[in-house]
Amino acid sequence: TNGFHYGSSSSSWVRLNVGGKVFQTTRSTLMREPCSFLYRLCQDEMGLPTDRDETGAYLIDRDPDFFSPILNYLRHGKLIMNPGLSEEGILAEADFYNLPSLSQLIMDRIQDRENSVKDATNK
Amino acid sequence: TNGFHYGSSSSSWVRLNVGGKVFQTTRSTLMREPCSFLYRLCQDEMGLPTDRDETGAYLIDRDPDFFSPILNYLRHGKLIMNPGLSEEGILAEADFYNLPSLSQLIMDRIQDRENSVKDATNK
Amino acid sequence: TNGFHYGSSSSSWVRLNVGGKVFQTTRSTLMREPCSFLYRLCQDEMGLPTDRDETGAYLIDRDPDFFSPILNYLRHGKLIMNPGLSEEGILAEADFYNLPSLSQLIMDRIQDRENSVKDATNK
Amino acid sequence: TNGFHYGSSSSSWVRLNVGGKVFQTTRSTLMREPCSFLYRLCQDEMGLPTDRDETGAYLIDRDPDFFSPILNYLRHGKLIMNPGLSEEGILAEADFYNLPSLSQLIMDRIQDRENSVKDATNK
Amino acid sequence: TNGFHYGSSSSSWVRLNVGGKVFQTTRSTLMREPCSFLYRLCQDEMGLPTDRDETGAYLIDRDPDFFSPILNYLRHGKLIMNPGLSEEGILAEADFYNLPSLSQLIMDRIQDRENSVKDATNK
Repeated sequence: TNGFHYGSSSSSWVRLNVGGKVFQTTRSTLMREPCSFLYRLCQDEMGLPTDRDETGAYLIDRDPDFFSPILNYLRHGKLIMNPGLSEEGILAEADFYNLPSLSQLIMDRIQDRENSVKDATNK
Repeated sequence: TNGFHYGSSSSSWVRLNVGGKVFQTTRSTLMREPCSFLYRLCQDEMGLPTDRDETGAYLIDRDPDFFSPILNYLRHGKLIMNPGLSEEGILAEADFYNLPSLSQLIMDRIQDRENSVKDATNK
Repeated sequence: TNGFHYGSSSSSWVRLNVGGKVFQTTRSTLMREPCSFLYRLCQDEMGLPTDRDETGAYLIDRDPDFFSPILNYLRHGKLIMNPGLSEEGILAEADFYNLPSLSQLIMDRIQDRENSVKDATNK
Repeated sequence: TNGFHYGSSSSSWVRLNVGGKVFQTTRSTLMREPCSFLYRLCQDEMGLPTDRDETGAYLIDRDPDFFSPILNYLRHGKLIMNPGLSEEGILAEADFYNLPSLSQLIMDRIQDRENSVKDATNK
Repeated sequence: TNGFHYGSSSSSWVRLNVGGKVFQTTRSTLMREPCSFLYRLCQDEMGLPTDRDETGAYLIDRDPDFFSPILNYLRHGKLIMNPGLSEEGILAEADFYNLPSLSQLIMDRIQDRENSVKDATNK
């Protein structure tokens, strides 16, 4: 239940080329949110011809560094943000990939940050 | 409208080798600002012979790390800066690629930063 | 005793493809914690067919950046966290790989951090 | 005048393997400072046999991360330092590559930093 | 004297695969400290069969990010630490590679850091 799909026959591996950097994940991870861009991408594989690079990875014209927290959210459902990464940058990606529950989590965190700045200023 | 050009037949993929690191994006992203260096680069592809590496990527003699926010700006029109990246470094690139609207955004942010430092010092 | 297994005939090298990034380590490092996911992975090599990429590396559908402190813990038994990496992100991985002693170390550190924030606020 | 040598026939591309990481730049960038190590490197290409890796890149036994601000200085003449990079580390490289004007810029910045620390302490 | 061994016939290049990342350096750099693990590694090349990856690089089962300051110390004798890197993490590597003079430098710096924290708290 907690991600041990390694070795299971139902999972299949997918390679994504996001802005020039390759990520490797499973179809089941990408299909966790039915309304998302990544869900649609996996369905396209069945039918429509789609853009792939020379190694067969799906091409996505977005930033690779901000994609990591997006993919991790689909893997385990948590919003994990390193201090060095801009919250606004991850929000732009969550909006692009159409993950409204994740966008909401990030907006809550931005709100918290701004409130704590205000508190510190008003002291 | 919000970037879902994936799979569209009108987009074509372009590889850029910026200072040794490869970025992958679309021609439509690079052609978003008609006065920019990257717009001219795409037009050159039609006519003039240009410098390419052995994999066919366009060679650009600039820093790759500061190029990410430049490319992201062309992708979604926002200035996203990670805390670990120097604002002056991104400004130098926005000037080089001839993106005056982005340069202005960065200069505004530098001004804000300096004002808040002054405020803290004068308290 | 302190990791000089280099050149020893009993060690064998293993390649892991974690979310698209390749790590290289030894079987003896991966088998240091008998209940962990990575221990089971090494045992599977003997028997069950498992998921590998085209270079023979084991595929694991998790974040590569948060994997570094996990692997280092197995190498030398210490919890080393760079300031730029989210503690909650490493905890999610320690839980996934089933390393309860490491999870406990991280939770202790998160507790310490929160206590020191509280101390600073109550001053 | 501001770096648009792209496509010009007088520039030729050079690959550097700095401590294992490959950088790509032009001969004209590397030859901007006549007394520097990198200028000499380009001249050697004409005559003496020199150390190259298997892809033809020049081998340099130095740190790659601290090399980025060095190369950027030769590209545009500015000292751009990300907050996460040690000033002393860049100074060691500026000295090694024999770029005294850059070394001076870094030493000025270190001096500024130490003065502002002293100011804060004496308040 | 200051590292310009480039092009010298007495230097030979060595590739190290540290935890999956490749570093390139010279034998003379690795042999700077006679008691170190890396000195022994270079001697082994003469005699004993050793572990190499498929490209001929020496395999070392340690973290690559913390290896950079270790290698830089052997290159120029200075301890350069980026703010984003844990001091305890570099110490663990200096101990592993058996570089007691470097370990001492790091412990001094940790001591300085803890003293300045104490000073700030007692004010």
